[in-house]
Amino acid sequence: MDPSPFARPGTAADLEEGLALTPKFDRDGLVTCVATDAATGDVLMVAHMNAAALSKTIATGEAWYFSRSRQALWRKGETSGHTQRVIEMRIDCDQDAVWIKVEQTVAACHTGRRSCFYRAVPLGKANGAVLTFVEERVFDPKVAR
Amino acid sequence: MDPSPFARPGTAADLEEGLALTPKFDRDGLVTCVATDAATGDVLMVAHMNAAALSKTIATGEAWYFSRSRQALWRKGETSGHTQRVIEMRIDCDQDAVWIKVEQTVAACHTGRRSCFYRAVPLGKANGAVLTFVEERVFDPKVAR
Repeated sequence: MDPSPFARPGTAADLEEGLALTPKFDRDGLVTCVATDAATGDVLMVAHMNAAALSKTIATGEAWYFSRSRQALWRKGETSGHTQRVIEMRIDCDQDAVWIKVEQTVAACHTGRRSCFYRAVPLGKANGAVLTFVEERVFDPKVAR
Repeated sequence: MDPSPFARPGTAADLEEGLALTPKFDRDGLVTCVATDAATGDVLMVAHMNAAALSKTIATGEAWYFSRSRQALWRKGETSGHTQRVIEMRIDCDQDAVWIKVEQTVAACHTGRRSCFYRAVPLGKANGAVLTFVEERVFDPKVAR
């Protein structure tokens, strides 16, 4: 793996009030990334970025992630065409999470829904909750992924 | 720790298309939770929930988290008063991330800003990026936390 282009995290005060981007990668070398739809504000997906993915996303304005299951860097939409153009990027107080507002082509979710968060969890009873589907498919995942 | 009230995750098909909430907790027993402002859609914070926190959040409609640094269950705002009332909860395709839309009292961030994502990362140059503060404090963290 290429060495990280980012400086190492400093003190809590540096992380929270500083002007330098010094991401606090976890023991697997990852930060969490939340992608929201720049148009609607909906959360589209939650995924992870390693230093290379974060660096490429910043440099290109296209969303890159690190797949934990495949242990591989990937550009969102590189096979499906369902890319994400980054409109704005934010970093959180302790610099271990990134928020990107994106223009999503077609859909973020491989199941065919625009957002990965297509089911609601009813509140009030923790046990035996029955999920409710709240989003229709916008493409057929059997045809195109 | 109490045993999880949730059934164990099944196949990918069950996780993605099923009606049962079977969270896929990671090796630390956690799922990622994104809290957005129900009024504005802004991402307020990213945190973690263990089975107890998720179960309490669902049962009470108030946001509970698990602090990795303190290794403790906590109700958001239990000391600061800056609670989160959950308006809606969603689960993602592989059930390892939760999205809650909340009514946030005062502010989500301990630094005094409403959102933890109060700094923008400029796009275009990965190295030496200078962060921009995009949110003012709404309370003084030296006075009230």
